[in-house]
Amino acid sequence: MEKVLGIDIGGTSIKVGMFSAEGTLEAVTKIPTGEIVSEAAFAVVTEGLKNLLAENGATPDDVIAIGLDVPGPVDDEGKVGMLANIELDPEGLQAAIKRTFTKANLAFVNDANAAALGELWQGTAKGANSFVLIAIGTGVGGGVVVNGKLVAGAFGAGGEIGHVTVKRDETESCGCGRKGCLEQYASAKGIVTQYKKECKRLGIEPVALDGPTDTLSVFNAHRAGDEAAIAALLGMCDTLGYAMAQISVVVDPQVYLIGGGVGGGFNLYAEDLRNSFRKYCLAPSAATRILPASLGNDAAMYGCAYQALLERGA
Amino acid sequence: MEKVLGIDIGGTSIKVGMFSAEGTLEAVTKIPTGEIVSEAAFAVVTEGLKNLLAENGATPDDVIAIGLDVPGPVDDEGKVGMLANIELDPEGLQAAIKRTFTKANLAFVNDANAAALGELWQGTAKGANSFVLIAIGTGVGGGVVVNGKLVAGAFGAGGEIGHVTVKRDETESCGCGRKGCLEQYASAKGIVTQYKKECKRLGIEPVALDGPTDTLSVFNAHRAGDEAAIAALLGMCDTLGYAMAQISVVVDPQVYLIGGGVGGGFNLYAEDLRNSFRKYCLAPSAATRILPASLGNDAAMYGCAYQALLERGA
Repeated sequence: MEKVLGIDIGGTSIKVGMFSAEGTLEAVTKIPTGEIVSEAAFAVVTEGLKNLLAENGATPDDVIAIGLDVPGPVDDEGKVGMLANIELDPEGLQAAIKRTFTKANLAFVNDANAAALGELWQGTAKGANSFVLIAIGTGVGGGVVVNGKLVAGAFGAGGEIGHVTVKRDETESCGCGRKGCLEQYASAKGIVTQYKKECKRLGIEPVALDGPTDTLSVFNAHRAGDEAAIAALLGMCDTLGYAMAQISVVVDPQVYLIGGGVGGGFNLYAEDLRNSFRKYCLAPSAATRILPASLGNDAAMYGCAYQALLERGA
Repeated sequence: MEKVLGIDIGGTSIKVGMFSAEGTLEAVTKIPTGEIVSEAAFAVVTEGLKNLLAENGATPDDVIAIGLDVPGPVDDEGKVGMLANIELDPEGLQAAIKRTFTKANLAFVNDANAAALGELWQGTAKGANSFVLIAIGTGVGGGVVVNGKLVAGAFGAGGEIGHVTVKRDETESCGCGRKGCLEQYASAKGIVTQYKKECKRLGIEPVALDGPTDTLSVFNAHRAGDEAAIAALLGMCDTLGYAMAQISVVVDPQVYLIGGGVGGGFNLYAEDLRNSFRKYCLAPSAATRILPASLGNDAAMYGCAYQALLERGA
């Protein structure tokens, strides 16, 4: 039986999904890794993969494609760029995996792009010809799919929509070094920052917050009618809708999917976001649908597996 | 011998190119038409096409594909949207052409998108996997190509990059009804307007201008060292480079091509435009090339022919 593996690479562990070639998730495991930069660490990964297969009645030779998603740029040719937040030697890991899985096609995919591909394979976007996934978590990532294919970009910056400029006169810098990026306002951190500002402005005592990205508490405050929370989410929708209008004059997708942790609160702000987009977009694009993503944290695992499978067929 | 026709539809006439299937332009003719909304007008077009073929030793049955470019939106399915500036019944013309050219595949393409496809087929972008054509004339049009294919958009608004917002606090309206669009500053009209403003600011007497879109005179003034012309083009480059940086975080093309009438002055402002783009873009995209388009006013005629040919093969 042909199998496909999707490997979601995190800072301290990897999460692996074993899929059928048709896209059914048959098993999942988590392998603690730490830094993945030595032969010993590569072996931990390959042994973990072999164990997952053995536990599910499969062998390395059954594996026809393996996708790996990484939190950093991957260009149109599949080359991994600078990884700021994890310790990973992509070439070394790739070589080790190839030695064990001789029949598998390997592909690296940027994590937000992978999440978009996951939604295309088995999520909300199944069958869509064009859509943009906006993954809102600590930062704002994105994945652009047009003509049924991912737009990774010539330099790996395709779908970096957290860096659409929304405020040219911003004085504080974004993590990218530029100023006024979407990510500064519409990320989990941006929403919490905005909530605190609104509390101060309205003279409201903020609810207890579990750190600088605790949007869950802001969402709960919103549900309880907290005015500052309502204003903060309205501001987020205004900014995000404006950025989406900029994206639409470039690729004009059928659908936007909102994913990531902040996507979990979609119903709270869906109408405000739709109204904001329609306010800013070019007239023909007003019919664009805005929907929640459906695969949650598994989306990237699905999507990198799918990309490896697609490239094998190509 | 298989032939492909490209039909560039204007307000008072059409320009037709007869190509080989390999993309060599073998003959061109202009057919005066006026409004193309009646059977009589459709017959003028089809007779004109037949004459062009006969004069060049070909027959309607040799024609395998016919492209028509229109100055308005065409969606991913090839459906023509509202045409503001010409009188054309696309369905009627399509039916008339199909009756005469029974073996040909027909395709409508938006004019800026067609120009991009033309550059991909036989121009500067030949062989490029991804690029964005920015056609600067009376307005600012665009064509986005990724993964080797045009991005028409789900609602025909793909590549409408004249409507990237570059100034959120603009008070004057763009033709689209929104405010602060690239087209308001970087079009021929925008450049001339900006030139006049700079003349006033600097206390310089403007050079004689042949109407509100006479960039040629502004370019000549620039060559003669006119400070207002230099400032106006610097401003154009600042705005255009900013807009291109927004496009790059969405599709991150290998190359930008500058076309249209204003593209003719490319060498005058090329370095300023490159500097502006690098100032605003996300770091990985700084290596993006910015080049002049090469097919001039024939680009759209080439490109709609190519699209019709591509769809035939699909």
